[in-house]
Amino acid sequence: MTLPHGAVQTPVFMPVGTAATVKAVPQDVLEKIGPRVEGPGASEPGTAGDGSGAQIILANTYHLYLRPGHELIRRAGGVHRFMSWERPMLTDSGGFQVFSLSKLREISPEGVEFRSHIDGSKHFFSPEHSMAVQIALGADIMMAFDECVETPASWERTRDSMGLTHDWAARSKAYWEQHRHEVPWAAAFEDKHQALFGIVQGGMYADLRKESAERLVEMDFPGYAIGGLAVGEPREVTREMIARTLEHLPPDKPRYVMGVGYPDEIEEYARMGVDMMDCVLPTRAGRHGLLFIRENPADRTSPVVRLNIKKLDNAEDHGPIDAGCSCSVCRRYSRAYLRHLFASGEPLGATLNSIHNLSFYLETMERVRGELARG
Amino acid sequence: MTLPHGAVQTPVFMPVGTAATVKAVPQDVLEKIGPRVEGPGASEPGTAGDGSGAQIILANTYHLYLRPGHELIRRAGGVHRFMSWERPMLTDSGGFQVFSLSKLREISPEGVEFRSHIDGSKHFFSPEHSMAVQIALGADIMMAFDECVETPASWERTRDSMGLTHDWAARSKAYWEQHRHEVPWAAAFEDKHQALFGIVQGGMYADLRKESAERLVEMDFPGYAIGGLAVGEPREVTREMIARTLEHLPPDKPRYVMGVGYPDEIEEYARMGVDMMDCVLPTRAGRHGLLFIRENPADRTSPVVRLNIKKLDNAEDHGPIDAGCSCSVCRRYSRAYLRHLFASGEPLGATLNSIHNLSFYLETMERVRGELARG
Repeated sequence: MTLPHGAVQTPVFMPVGTAATVKAVPQDVLEKIGPRVEGPGASEPGTAGDGSGAQIILANTYHLYLRPGHELIRRAGGVHRFMSWERPMLTDSGGFQVFSLSKLREISPEGVEFRSHIDGSKHFFSPEHSMAVQIALGADIMMAFDECVETPASWERTRDSMGLTHDWAARSKAYWEQHRHEVPWAAAFEDKHQALFGIVQGGMYADLRKESAERLVEMDFPGYAIGGLAVGEPREVTREMIARTLEHLPPDKPRYVMGVGYPDEIEEYARMGVDMMDCVLPTRAGRHGLLFIRENPADRTSPVVRLNIKKLDNAEDHGPIDAGCSCSVCRRYSRAYLRHLFASGEPLGATLNSIHNLSFYLETMERVRGELARG
Repeated sequence: MTLPHGAVQTPVFMPVGTAATVKAVPQDVLEKIGPRVEGPGASEPGTAGDGSGAQIILANTYHLYLRPGHELIRRAGGVHRFMSWERPMLTDSGGFQVFSLSKLREISPEGVEFRSHIDGSKHFFSPEHSMAVQIALGADIMMAFDECVETPASWERTRDSMGLTHDWAARSKAYWEQHRHEVPWAAAFEDKHQALFGIVQGGMYADLRKESAERLVEMDFPGYAIGGLAVGEPREVTREMIARTLEHLPPDKPRYVMGVGYPDEIEEYARMGVDMMDCVLPTRAGRHGLLFIRENPADRTSPVVRLNIKKLDNAEDHGPIDAGCSCSVCRRYSRAYLRHLFASGEPLGATLNSIHNLSFYLETMERVRGELARG
């Protein structure tokens, strides 16, 4: 996938940098985590022992709109320059956070009025406004503004919501086409512009997913996301919905499943044909002392196990989190030390746990890429 | 100063790693902060642009005794191996924290009974027990167990407390001489052992400071600390007490002022002949959004200014914290971004602010070392 700020090898996992920071992980570490990425466009690693780092990260439009404000970020030259991250980025539309975090939402065909979860102030997001904010932020990929239906929702409710999402997708696209030259880095990256992805909705109904995919493909976006999944439904349903949606999306364009998942899920979805995924899980779990490891450290295809670093078993375990992991944390620190940091509430614990989990995710995806490339 | 884990160029500032972690700063970053250190024993820097890092760090005996426990750290091979820090370290005696953090202290000539600030459990520290704990931790330098008198205290009260400190210093030394071979790394570092420093007390009374220094010098320690300062007294008094104590300490042995100070103070004390200092200020101030900078960034001897990153002036300041600072944070991030991180409560803010402040301290000391070396 070739983007203004660089090439990305797919399938790819994107760490989430909610407020223009992947929580507790410095940017120079993000540039070195995970394994070496192979293939054209692979990022140059720093020094011996370093990996290639995250190829692309995500930032949240809702959060950055509220704080520090998209106009401030525009004046800073865009979110890449603001946070000092020169590799590709993606912003979501703000829709998901408006529906999940904010208070007193009022939805009309025009858009959504909501109150900030920070200070209760009133705001209005329309598809056009979401595009304007995302153009100011200037990520390489921006997302159409969509409605996320509550779950569970009836077929009729889901169909109506999907219809609104389609109208908003068309309006998002129209605004993007007219305004994309306004991106803050337009002058620095001549002839390059942001890509806008459409978002397939349709809840847990295969017929609606098909209809939504077809409608969006008619609109002809440079890439397509599958939204509204991993919102509490059983995992079999998630997989079924992904499978039934992928059938109707062109394989030669990026296909992105938003907000997933556990390491075994991202591997499974990648094998099904998903090109992009993002999730707060590796960093959030890390902050809570949950570490992903392989059941058999020597076999990187063995089942994923969750290690709870708090547990007393780790108190005197002087081995690494995962003896088969080559991340900077596993190379240097013991389970005993990480348990001590967590038990003592030391901020370094959150940082090191997050680095390991992100490395674990990137390692998983690099292995899957290699296996897919070899057929 | 030649220590089992390496040589240290003095005068030196020692970052504080309370619970075997310099709060919010990873060990590999600590190895690269600050400027390049010159002279024999200077640490090898990593890659281009990196500094030599902290030469020596401190850990707190009281904290590590309570959590994770010194016996656990002994079994891990000592605090160096436990936290993966192979450069020199120093542990305090636990005395200061027993007197400042714990509850229900009861002091007798034998030692101090106290309750943990974490869970209220009852503990007893004698000079012998402090030594046993510090030998288990295995830092390069350990400190005699002393009583820290409250401030202000009368001359009589200070004299009596000082007398207890002298008795405890003698008992500390006797225990250290008999048990120092028990350090966990004894086998790995043949013929090398921990150094024990005596601590001069005497409150704010020059005659008592003189008496305390003379008594300790008679006992013949490998190094001497000046304790009980920077506890709320005016800065002129701190300086006066340091000056009046230094006169009575041999200049050919390390002289360490505990728990100081602001950047201009550590510079001043270094010029007075102090060889070692430690303070939580750079990291604690960093976590609170206070950054040390030079009034004139181009003149590194110009006055120190405190920048409050929270302030609205920084919201759209896209320049670095300190344009004359070569630290990794000033090279990469803007004031605007650091303000955003702080205002959003993002953990990366504490990390980056701490890295800058520690680098600022190390830069200051490296400059002073150069100036002293050139006479």
